[in-house]
Amino acid sequence: MDLKAYLEERRRLVNRSLEAYLPAVRGPAFRVTQAMHYSLFVGGKRLRPILCLAAAEAVGGDAGEVLPVACALEMIHTYSLIHDDLPAMDDDDLRRGQPTCHKQFDEATAILAGDGLLTEAFQIVAAAAPRYEGREAVVLEVIRLLAAGAGYQGMVGGQMLDLLAEGRQVTLKELETIHRHKTGALLTAAVRSGALLGGGSRAEVTALTAYGEKFGLAFQITDDLLDVEGEAAEMGKAPGMDQKRRKATYPAVLGLEATRTWARRLVDEAVACLEPFQEKAAPLRELARYLLGRRS
Amino acid sequence: MDLKAYLEERRRLVNRSLEAYLPAVRGPAFRVTQAMHYSLFVGGKRLRPILCLAAAEAVGGDAGEVLPVACALEMIHTYSLIHDDLPAMDDDDLRRGQPTCHKQFDEATAILAGDGLLTEAFQIVAAAAPRYEGREAVVLEVIRLLAAGAGYQGMVGGQMLDLLAEGRQVTLKELETIHRHKTGALLTAAVRSGALLGGGSRAEVTALTAYGEKFGLAFQITDDLLDVEGEAAEMGKAPGMDQKRRKATYPAVLGLEATRTWARRLVDEAVACLEPFQEKAAPLRELARYLLGRRS
Repeated sequence: MDLKAYLEERRRLVNRSLEAYLPAVRGPAFRVTQAMHYSLFVGGKRLRPILCLAAAEAVGGDAGEVLPVACALEMIHTYSLIHDDLPAMDDDDLRRGQPTCHKQFDEATAILAGDGLLTEAFQIVAAAAPRYEGREAVVLEVIRLLAAGAGYQGMVGGQMLDLLAEGRQVTLKELETIHRHKTGALLTAAVRSGALLGGGSRAEVTALTAYGEKFGLAFQITDDLLDVEGEAAEMGKAPGMDQKRRKATYPAVLGLEATRTWARRLVDEAVACLEPFQEKAAPLRELARYLLGRRS
Repeated sequence: MDLKAYLEERRRLVNRSLEAYLPAVRGPAFRVTQAMHYSLFVGGKRLRPILCLAAAEAVGGDAGEVLPVACALEMIHTYSLIHDDLPAMDDDDLRRGQPTCHKQFDEATAILAGDGLLTEAFQIVAAAAPRYEGREAVVLEVIRLLAAGAGYQGMVGGQMLDLLAEGRQVTLKELETIHRHKTGALLTAAVRSGALLGGGSRAEVTALTAYGEKFGLAFQITDDLLDVEGEAAEMGKAPGMDQKRRKATYPAVLGLEATRTWARRLVDEAVACLEPFQEKAAPLRELARYLLGRRS
């Protein structure tokens, strides 16, 4: 399959849907919707939505039907970037090569824009209920998954751990705990919620969840590698920032070569989870392999 | 009825439930759960949960069954206080007479604690699904209501408007728009979600929603009056802060006497909405009347 064309088509699908959910309409609180819109459309690979749609299709579901959840995932991801970039957190001026939300607007607006996106994610899934008539219990389980992946047991907890680890030596085990929370939990929730809402059987949902967990860890490891090996122009941010900030990374703990080997093994394991789905899982398979060659 | 005893009993019920939802357990991201727990239990009248429970009972529902939603409302309310208090927002050091979250912990932890509470609110409602078997569509509508009341069309939008209005002259109409969003939307959602989940008929839900809207506006107006007339010891915060910050308030726009008259009229209107519910709405009736004599 042509992964590049596939990703392009999916990005357009997700973007059209996001645009419909969050028009930059003028209104009394225009400034905050404008900031939400800015951060949502300043770039982004739409990886989490694409994983969600692809998981639904792997179990024979319809991508279009899963779109509200896919968009919710991107809203949650974008909110987390806005808040992580704040001066009190990672204090970043650039994101995807553009000014971060608090630079483009101001700090108060950025906090509120993040809050607004997180809240809107749950709003759009709950508001999509009529299209899931008779399957409301599954939608509630999806909401629970998104919240658990995003909250203190997932992403929020991971960001806390990451901040606490800054500037000190961490073990490999600690590093895994950080990333399983910080990026793994939401990536896994993306795949699992797509599989559930797509109508997957229990065994299918379990297999895809395992794929999601491997994928999530491989994603973070290759992200760390990119920070060491990448070039600023392609990444849209300065490389070497992790080291500069004394952030805990896999190359720092394991060394470059062992990190590369581990990433390859994880991708192989992720791909192995997809065997029962045959050709229906082709996009998920290519997405995992793509991690090893990622440039941004 | 003995409102004081009623409120005391309800506060205990809500606190026990909140404590069960968010035990301050040690775990990898202990610091953020500790901060969430701190802000949730540093005080608080539990007004939104109590309104939700009372609305459920007004339509003949069971308070215990509505507890997850009641607790979610308090988590959303607490998150909004944590973020509003941040240096980039209202920059408050004290809340309910105690250090605000970013003073007790630090700014990054406070941002994450707010994010964590907002997310957990949706998690606990979705996770309570098994107890609402057969009524999942209503639970989804409740989640939608909470999110709409909390998000950019509600509370988040209101906080943005409030920040934008600071330091400039606002009209009465603008002031109403600010408060309908900032405090009214979530208070109304509290009453409406209780009525819905309690099994209220369409007409009952409509009547209680109208009560919630009047109550929300009266609450804000009496809050403004309190800032002019109150005493620090009773309020747990310094009075006169609104004027000091040049915040838009009703007494500043309307004058003291007209503000008091308007508050009385709104409370009368709120109480009138409760007529169909007779004695079952006694707590909601007393709560509205209580606003006129509030000291904190």
